[in-house]
Amino acid sequence: MASLKNVGRSLARCTLQSVARGPHIQSVRCRAAAPAVNVRPVDDEPAAPMVKTAIPGPRSKELLRDLESIQNSEAVQFFVDYDRSHGNYITDADDNVLLDLYTQIASIPIGYNHPNLMAVMQKPENLGHFINRPALGVFPPKDWAEKLRKTLLAVAPPGMSEVQTMACGACSVEHAQKALFIAYKARQRGGAPPTKEELSSCVMNQPPGSPDLSILSFKGAFHGRTMGALAVTHSKAIHKLDFPTPLWPAASFPELRYPLEDFVQENRAEEERCLAEVRDLIEIYQKKGRPVVGIAVEPIQCEGGDNHATPYFFQGLQDITRENSIGLLIDEVQTGCASTGKFWAHEHWNLREPPDTVSFAKKMLTGGFYYREQYRPKEGFRIFNTWVGDPAKVTLLEEVVKVIKSQNLVTNMANIGEYLQQGLKDAQTKFPGVVKNARGLGSLCSIDFNNSATRDKAILALREKGIHVGSCGDVAIRLRPTLIFQKKHADVFFDCFDSVLSSFK
Amino acid sequence: MASLKNVGRSLARCTLQSVARGPHIQSVRCRAAAPAVNVRPVDDEPAAPMVKTAIPGPRSKELLRDLESIQNSEAVQFFVDYDRSHGNYITDADDNVLLDLYTQIASIPIGYNHPNLMAVMQKPENLGHFINRPALGVFPPKDWAEKLRKTLLAVAPPGMSEVQTMACGACSVEHAQKALFIAYKARQRGGAPPTKEELSSCVMNQPPGSPDLSILSFKGAFHGRTMGALAVTHSKAIHKLDFPTPLWPAASFPELRYPLEDFVQENRAEEERCLAEVRDLIEIYQKKGRPVVGIAVEPIQCEGGDNHATPYFFQGLQDITRENSIGLLIDEVQTGCASTGKFWAHEHWNLREPPDTVSFAKKMLTGGFYYREQYRPKEGFRIFNTWVGDPAKVTLLEEVVKVIKSQNLVTNMANIGEYLQQGLKDAQTKFPGVVKNARGLGSLCSIDFNNSATRDKAILALREKGIHVGSCGDVAIRLRPTLIFQKKHADVFFDCFDSVLSSFK
Repeated sequence: MASLKNVGRSLARCTLQSVARGPHIQSVRCRAAAPAVNVRPVDDEPAAPMVKTAIPGPRSKELLRDLESIQNSEAVQFFVDYDRSHGNYITDADDNVLLDLYTQIASIPIGYNHPNLMAVMQKPENLGHFINRPALGVFPPKDWAEKLRKTLLAVAPPGMSEVQTMACGACSVEHAQKALFIAYKARQRGGAPPTKEELSSCVMNQPPGSPDLSILSFKGAFHGRTMGALAVTHSKAIHKLDFPTPLWPAASFPELRYPLEDFVQENRAEEERCLAEVRDLIEIYQKKGRPVVGIAVEPIQCEGGDNHATPYFFQGLQDITRENSIGLLIDEVQTGCASTGKFWAHEHWNLREPPDTVSFAKKMLTGGFYYREQYRPKEGFRIFNTWVGDPAKVTLLEEVVKVIKSQNLVTNMANIGEYLQQGLKDAQTKFPGVVKNARGLGSLCSIDFNNSATRDKAILALREKGIHVGSCGDVAIRLRPTLIFQKKHADVFFDCFDSVLSSFK
Repeated sequence: MASLKNVGRSLARCTLQSVARGPHIQSVRCRAAAPAVNVRPVDDEPAAPMVKTAIPGPRSKELLRDLESIQNSEAVQFFVDYDRSHGNYITDADDNVLLDLYTQIASIPIGYNHPNLMAVMQKPENLGHFINRPALGVFPPKDWAEKLRKTLLAVAPPGMSEVQTMACGACSVEHAQKALFIAYKARQRGGAPPTKEELSSCVMNQPPGSPDLSILSFKGAFHGRTMGALAVTHSKAIHKLDFPTPLWPAASFPELRYPLEDFVQENRAEEERCLAEVRDLIEIYQKKGRPVVGIAVEPIQCEGGDNHATPYFFQGLQDITRENSIGLLIDEVQTGCASTGKFWAHEHWNLREPPDTVSFAKKMLTGGFYYREQYRPKEGFRIFNTWVGDPAKVTLLEEVVKVIKSQNLVTNMANIGEYLQQGLKDAQTKFPGVVKNARGLGSLCSIDFNNSATRDKAILALREKGIHVGSCGDVAIRLRPTLIFQKKHADVFFDCFDSVLSSFK
């Protein structure tokens, strides 16, 4: 894990991307020119994990029994003392201190109790944002446009300048889908207003006002759990069982071999196969009378198992949307906000033009979606609800964006990502029968075990040593560190990981 | 509007409810026994409206142009200076001070910048709740069960002791629906686990795992704007146009004549007609192979025009759900949290047993739903997402609940509601050709104009006088005051209302 290795890997990646970009290549920007990273330490961050009890410990178990009397709590892993969690370390209800590489399912941007966020909360002029929640779509605060500029627009994907806030990830995907439906029908009408029949039929869920349209998604995808978001989700039965869902097309997502650079030809063929399937499904659903108005895709299928595809695949998807005059919805709820070493994961692809809509939530603190101008609804009240987001979250995001920029945390994620990925590769070299398929984009990385049981055992063994990671898919552990994660934290992780894998040999 | 009139009306309502309750009657609780209301004034609340410019004024118009460059802003009415809004008065970006009877679409519980909420924000021990947002379903804060007890469970509908938090109203309805689907299929399986075929088919949106089930709703209903919530919404075309929606049954909601006490017989016949339609649709959809698993209904159809039904209707709906072994989802997103003069509007009905699920949001600050024990999913991760709510909002709700209880604001809403309703009735007596159908339940009240154009003109004329009210349906204005609204505020409203109606004669 010497710096020389990192340089080597950095160059290798630049080369790989150049190949994968093919005719789309615009520029090869290596991080050598990036400004210096300057991660400021968080007060009171522990120097190392400290585990005192089993996890969940006696106090967590007692609290769980209590919560179980109020709601199903089977998903609870342990209870947390958030006041005593600092930076990259989370402290549980039994005083166990864990290095957190899962970060509330990838949703803590700059660590627990970051001093800058505490300072935001202590400014008297900010308090009103937290207690007077407006109906943003009708009575926005007077500084709303200014706040959007300082936050969401200051980090907007290249080429995108419009944004709509929402409360959570699922709502963001639902409303981004609605933007696609609206734009598709508007194009069909060619500027004419909706007919009386459309207006009256839609209120009763009937065509032509409620048309039989679809959005194409991918096997293994996860986009959320409300009905529209769930319709494009295909990762696990537990998310979907028993719920009626529209029968929309789902194509294969590439099943690539890792490391990507060693299987360029095989992976290209697999991506071609999936792109062909997308083309076929669009044609089939057109004939079925259920036209596809857009394609929803994650840059990395996270919940589905950290499944990657190359820029070539995503460029191909965009080409298909252009050929068919339909929309491309990139769902960056988990991949957005710097963790991949670029602010948005899709910036790694050098697309010919910006995506049509980009949804976000989690580390962005607010949900929402960016959209291209042609996806702006002409009428008010179409992308709307009472709150449509929360200025309180945007007030916090303003400080998060400042910290990301002033401390160069995007670059930090590129650097630490290479370090993490190299460490995972070293682990699979050292423990060939135990772990495989080390992969990642920036800090958003993962590794597979041979089966679910071993993976689950490894997660618990890591936890006993004070390392908190998440699972994804059937056999992977996923690392989702904060943006202020540093080499010293990675070293703590790898020491424990090595020890756990040694015990598994 | 003398107090004698109020007593008279109070007695009349008790009598009416006794009649309507029929065989369900359990007790007639009149508010005479309620503890004294003690609304504490909010610092800096203005004594009266003050309008300096047209609304929107020049500053709002300038800000609108700016926001329009970022997103469609056609729904924006004016920009607000929230820091300078206090209690029941909202101050816009042009320094106009309005008495707020719309309160961010009924979502401000105890007024702007309430001193108790400011105090919550100033306690250092609370700040962490606002900056460390957990994935509540897996890593809850150690005081989570305690917090739920002090807040949502302290005001739970009678007979309900389980609750699930969610981020917003639409998500609350979506997940309450999911609880109905899960319970229905669990009953069908009779304790057996799902089959392998169900588990594999649901991931691809196919039956039997994704079964063709439906939820019955009502014409004129509004339940939200994500796909599942929108499927049970039937109020306006602008909410629904262009979006694919499952074809679920929608029954007629009673179109009652007001005042309810003068049309008992006609209204009873209308409610019988609607109940018969519900029964028919359940049978038809069973035969169609799209069984109804539950009925979603608002206590008052707010967005749809403030359409009321009597307790008899809701009792009848519950009977139908019992006869068919299906669920009853009462959507109290707008009607909950004290404004009707009981904490939950459905408490006015004296149901035989509690509803199966009750959704909430808006004035409750957090979304979520209560559910009966038989609607608790057996497995974790079924009613789930990353955030499933927000402890920050529950921290504020804790103080709101304290204020509601210590100042007896539920009773305040019953009292002020009678005063408001009487005032609206006096107005329709005085201006018979202009307004009609004065109606309400507690403070949640409204009145109709002859047509949309006159109604819209009245809203603007009121605004010019410093009164901010909302529209609903085609011809109604709706009053949605805060829970600390008092007689003095109502008098300000009625003075202006009288003056506007006089100008319309």
